[in-house]
Order: sequence, then structure tokens, then C-alpha cells
Amino acid sequence: MKKLKLQELNRLSVEEYQQQNKHNIIVVVDNVRSAMNIGSIFRTADAFLVKEVLLVGISATPPNREIQKTALGATESVAWNYFESIATCIEYLEKNNYVIICVEQSNSAIPLHNLDFLSDTNYAIVLGNEVDGVSQEFMDTCNYCVEIPQFGTKHSLNVAVCAGIVLWQIIQHKIS
Amino acid sequence: MKKLKLQELNRLSVEEYQQQNKHNIIVVVDNVRSAMNIGSIFRTADAFLVKEVLLVGISATPPNREIQKTALGATESVAWNYFESIATCIEYLEKNNYVIICVEQSNSAIPLHNLDFLSDTNYAIVLGNEVDGVSQEFMDTCNYCVEIPQFGTKHSLNVAVCAGIVLWQIIQHKIS
Repeated sequence: MKKLKLQELNRLSVEEYQQQNKHNIIVVVDNVRSAMNIGSIFRTADAFLVKEVLLVGISATPPNREIQKTALGATESVAWNYFESIATCIEYLEKNNYVIICVEQSNSAIPLHNLDFLSDTNYAIVLGNEVDGVSQEFMDTCNYCVEIPQFGTKHSLNVAVCAGIVLWQIIQHKIS
Repeated sequence: MKKLKLQELNRLSVEEYQQQNKHNIIVVVDNVRSAMNIGSIFRTADAFLVKEVLLVGISATPPNREIQKTALGATESVAWNYFESIATCIEYLEKNNYVIICVEQSNSAIPLHNLDFLSDTNYAIVLGNEVDGVSQEFMDTCNYCVEIPQFGTKHSLNVAVCAGIVLWQIIQHKIS
């Protein structure tokens, strides 16, 4: 098997990317502490044509050296916005008809593979802080809470890995 | 919705984990440069009850400070082994009846969502170097090559995010 060379991948330029139709998915980065995790989320959002990344609270914003280390330029292609307050962010999502899904281990979380994502629905995926998880304010207003089933000794997956898994789960239904 | 407290997650102790039946999945870390990526792969392998992580070539091995930063102890629970040479690693996988799947963008890669993973088959998932991808030696011997469809400006996803997505794709069929 022959690996493809970079130029054979036919990737979009930043200008082409900005013209491209995006999937109706927003990623909400709720008070994430590590800027390297945020950069990695941008890189995944670029790959999966996510409409927008919303950075909330203490989450770092571009331009930022740590974000850049893992985003590798994806902050130039992916649209993003910053909200200091969770309430304003929720208002923005509701005004634009986004179904809010928190990714969190809770008393009423649905296992990820049991949630049917609909192609004509706008989804906002909320990812939380590395220690405290998704803020209670998002938990109180969200439409669903999903969790990635985990069977080991650790309490959670890395937040950027989490983002990749949940986005892939939605995207694979859109491209099948 | 109420977030679960750490003790409500009922996670396994390291001793319980080691007694637990694992999924017949091996993750091969083929010459991965970043020890933090390796640690993150360990953390995901712990969550998904992966049988073994095989570290190959220049991939760092525990104990290692950078691995520990992202593995958060998962190197204690997950079984691992080191192979200096790819040939010896392939020999080990073939002797133990593992179907070898390279995760790589190639001329004959199957999109991840189009590959049917069978529950009674042993899979070895090969993840490659951050710049050069999976080694040609693995590409020449593998049974399949899969790729995660990507639509943006960047050439690839982060390798630890990649590992999470591919492992989740296999695991969700096992637990459905």
C-alpha cells in the first residue's frame, strides 16, 4: 500500500475552506484550562467542517502560542467566537436553534452510541473543564447529556480525544 | 442534570483492571515522537479495555515524565511491551492471530465507517509517526488500511485523537 503524499490529499486552502458549506455543528469549549487541548480541538474541528468553535470563560483564545502548537493553523480556517459568560453563550445557541448536548458523566447521560443524531438538526457539543467537567449552568439548560462509555481505572478521557470521538460519531452519520 | 462524583463512577482499581477480561484489540504505537501523545493513547486504552499497547522503534516507554503527564497512571493498568524492530512486532502479531490495520491515508484506504469490525476477530491498530505516518514496513504487511475521512485544510488529525476515534469505532460495535 502506498501512502498518499501531502499534495495528493487535495486539502482545501484557508480561502476555499471559508467558502465551503459547513456541518451544522458548534463545539463549545467550556472553561477548558489547557490551551494545547483547545488547539487540538480546533484541528479536529477543521477536519470535520465544524461551523464554529465557541470559547467560554477561562478558555484561552487565539492568537496563543500553546493553542498554535496543536492547532497547527486551524484557528485561521475554523470560525470561532468568545463568550465570557455561559448565559450569553446559551442565549446565542438558543437564538440560533442549536440543540445543546453536554458531554459529561451524569445521572441521566445517554451512552454516545445510543443517541440518534439527525442530519437536519443543529447540534452544539459542550466540552468541559479537565477537572470539574461541564459547568452546571450548561448541565441545567442542555437538551441532552451524552457520555462515552468507559471501563477502566481512570475517571475520564482527555477532553480533545473526547471531542474527536463525539464529532466523529455525528459526522459519520452525515457522510454515510 | 447532576454530574456524577468520582466515587459514583465505580471505576476499577489497578488490581481489578488486571483481572478484567480485555477486548481483543492491540494498539501499536509505531515510532511516535511525542511522549505526551503516547500517554494520551494509554489513557484511552485504559478506558476501552484494550489488551495491550505495543511501543515500537523511537516511541518512548514508561516510566517517562511526559507519558505520565497525559497517561495519569494508565501505564500501571494497561499491559504494554516494547519492540525495537517492526519485523519482530509483526511476527508477534501474526503469531497471535491479529489482523493488522494501519490507520493511514493511502491509495487503498477504506473509510473508517465502511469497515465492518467483527467481534470475534483480534485487531491490531497501527498508529504512525506525527510527520511520516505509519512505517512502510507495516503498510506492506497489514491486512487493511483505514482512514478517518477529513475535509479541512490540515493534512491529518492528532495521533492521540485518531487513536480515540478508531478505538471507539471498534468498541461501540462490541458494546451495542
